[in-house]
Amino acid sequence: MDTLFSHITAVTMDEAMHVYFDCFVGVTDGKIAYLSKTPPKEKPRKIINGEGMVLMPGLINCHTHLPMSLLRGYADDYDLSTWLNDYIFPREDRLDGRAVKAATLLSIAECLRFGVTSVSDMYNFCDEIAQAVAESGIKANIARGITLFTDESEDFDFEAYLPCQELQALKEKWDGYDGGRIRVEASVHGEYTSNYRLWDALGEYALNEHLGMHVHLSETRSEHESCKEKYGLTPAQVLDCHHVFDTHAIAAHCVWLEPEDMALLAKRGVSAVHCPVSNLKLASGCADVTAMIKAGMNVALGTDGSASNNNLDLFEEMKAAALMAKGKTGDPTAMPATAPLMMATVCGARAQRREKECGMIKLGMDADLIMLDFTSPHLMPCHNVISQLVYAASGHDVIMTMVRGKILYAAGKYLTIDLDSVVRELAQYAMPRVFTDDKKVPEQEQA
Amino acid sequence: MDTLFSHITAVTMDEAMHVYFDCFVGVTDGKIAYLSKTPPKEKPRKIINGEGMVLMPGLINCHTHLPMSLLRGYADDYDLSTWLNDYIFPREDRLDGRAVKAATLLSIAECLRFGVTSVSDMYNFCDEIAQAVAESGIKANIARGITLFTDESEDFDFEAYLPCQELQALKEKWDGYDGGRIRVEASVHGEYTSNYRLWDALGEYALNEHLGMHVHLSETRSEHESCKEKYGLTPAQVLDCHHVFDTHAIAAHCVWLEPEDMALLAKRGVSAVHCPVSNLKLASGCADVTAMIKAGMNVALGTDGSASNNNLDLFEEMKAAALMAKGKTGDPTAMPATAPLMMATVCGARAQRREKECGMIKLGMDADLIMLDFTSPHLMPCHNVISQLVYAASGHDVIMTMVRGKILYAAGKYLTIDLDSVVRELAQYAMPRVFTDDKKVPEQEQA
Repeated sequence: MDTLFSHITAVTMDEAMHVYFDCFVGVTDGKIAYLSKTPPKEKPRKIINGEGMVLMPGLINCHTHLPMSLLRGYADDYDLSTWLNDYIFPREDRLDGRAVKAATLLSIAECLRFGVTSVSDMYNFCDEIAQAVAESGIKANIARGITLFTDESEDFDFEAYLPCQELQALKEKWDGYDGGRIRVEASVHGEYTSNYRLWDALGEYALNEHLGMHVHLSETRSEHESCKEKYGLTPAQVLDCHHVFDTHAIAAHCVWLEPEDMALLAKRGVSAVHCPVSNLKLASGCADVTAMIKAGMNVALGTDGSASNNNLDLFEEMKAAALMAKGKTGDPTAMPATAPLMMATVCGARAQRREKECGMIKLGMDADLIMLDFTSPHLMPCHNVISQLVYAASGHDVIMTMVRGKILYAAGKYLTIDLDSVVRELAQYAMPRVFTDDKKVPEQEQA
Repeated sequence: MDTLFSHITAVTMDEAMHVYFDCFVGVTDGKIAYLSKTPPKEKPRKIINGEGMVLMPGLINCHTHLPMSLLRGYADDYDLSTWLNDYIFPREDRLDGRAVKAATLLSIAECLRFGVTSVSDMYNFCDEIAQAVAESGIKANIARGITLFTDESEDFDFEAYLPCQELQALKEKWDGYDGGRIRVEASVHGEYTSNYRLWDALGEYALNEHLGMHVHLSETRSEHESCKEKYGLTPAQVLDCHHVFDTHAIAAHCVWLEPEDMALLAKRGVSAVHCPVSNLKLASGCADVTAMIKAGMNVALGTDGSASNNNLDLFEEMKAAALMAKGKTGDPTAMPATAPLMMATVCGARAQRREKECGMIKLGMDADLIMLDFTSPHLMPCHNVISQLVYAASGHDVIMTMVRGKILYAAGKYLTIDLDSVVRELAQYAMPRVFTDDKKVPEQEQA
């Protein structure tokens, strides 16, 4: 046995939602190999004293754009189109792979610090994103978000389209890397940023290559309504007609889904990724998660990018999900604490096609584990561990993050990321490159 | 000069919302005595290196029930009446002063850890609450929440009513303690938990004794509507008729205020205390803060008690306030980051009648200051300090909390509270007393 967590409270997230107090959890060869109320006979190489601590499966962030940490807080409190067109897009145009890698490493450090052990990312410069993921030890499903702004009457040559070539190269180089720690996924960025020529081709490619699909779906009312005007179908319906959901797919946001959409996506096994903080911050609306779950959909959680959140703390997202469901339904019993905790673990694993691999503390599963310190004033007394995790705790309470039995973050230290050099790279290369033409002095400076 | 913060970013919250980078803030005799871009000539007794740090006024939590930390997470996800009648009230009946003091000290430790330097509390056993506040060094306006369930046809003898006697004793002993660090306030718990006999008497007493007034107002729709059926007036209107707002008053929640209520409360100088997290968690609704501010009301922020939040992190409350306003109005430009930051500082100080004393970094004001570490991954890069504080930061980022120039919390250490003995007192006395008849083994235990 490599590592033993002793006398710890284990929130297993297994089918019966077992929570074991004062128990022992052992890790061998990166897998969970021991779970008992009594200590193991064999002597472990390393013992971590779990008194006052809570052990749970690492959280899974199913929709984010890791490199956007570079734009965190750069343009808040604007309307969506001003935010995108006047601020975000012009800056993103100045990105290159080197800047993206630095920003991605910064975001991965944040993920690990907040107890996230696996992410589903959608962006550009995916080779550099994959390099950062590979170095850091975190798990990731990496999607190359693809748009197509040509007229749909024009023929579309998949092989000749650069983003599709990049996806193919990405798949060849990274899909299945390190025993599946990295998975490459296809991505129709959104219905409103492409047309059926891309949908058909990418849907077919993903199915043939056994790649998952990651899309933005019905995030804003205008996007949802324009699609209905244009096609007489909802975004979910039109993408489904064009093979986008023929493969395993996840749909981010799903704020404006209609009952028929929910039934359709449930039938097609499409997972929704709920991003309550981003949806509120951009005033996109509040997804009806309670209805999606009732309709039989698998619902996971995501933070969206740092520019629209503005952090990657999935604990904050869990609390927001529970509060928003209660607020939307007017029912305080709606979405009890267990629900968002499942969304951030087992449902996230399902959305990532990793349900056999992680999302629970269960013998044989990868040791993707996080430990929280429950001895801080805001976590005492502890009447109910689940309530405490969702309503009182924060990603800041995570003191250890482990992926496949390897500790990647512990007590303020990042064991696979040289944060100082990342910060230097951001300051000396990424920031000047992306913001050089921007005013040097931050707007509040008045002294 | 006692303490100098050097090369620090100072978010002053002054009238012009100045943010100074790489500046120097000096503290002498508990007051802010120096603020400049250049270092002072005189040598300070102590220098705190502020590189990478942000200094701002301590946050002010204008509505809480400190002792309720004892009930944190005890009964979540129930409907309001089940939560109150079957869980909260029966436990509160078992409280005594000793249990209340321990729970209050725990909550104050949490406040200090999260950067709160002043609170407005409403509860019972206020002498013990005042003792805890006195020992801890935090500032507090302490209100003895008073209910009256007799029929309003019955005469009411203020002098003979025990809660009113307690209020008088509390005022004699604690009002103005330590140069006004403690202020005692009167409190009509709520319109629905009392009648005009109490309102008239308490309103007159508060006015004569120059005490502030702290009430719950229009928290739930049913409370608001029943009042209108009973009196033909809204809670705000009926309490106003009966002198409750003749003195300086704060009204917690204000979820169901009508436009006339807002105009009335603005005219009477009553501050609203917005508690977005509690209001969502109990599905009470979402207060229309944008409209209140437009109507000219002073709006502060509160966490409510730990049992309905479930923490006292006012940074979380600031973000929730901004997100809820955007969600409610459908306008992402609604309540920009500066607004909740003002609610948690200058507006809170006004609600506490401490606006001449704290809420800003300004020469002559009390040195109620907090320092945040802005070198963590989730706070880099920093394009906009204000956005970062509201949308990306957390109370966990606070590394120092100072009240009147005295450091009460720094880097995990509580300098005025012996947390270990508080935890022992909770485990050995408070918990057994309040929960003895309760099942010993937490419900999730199944091993």
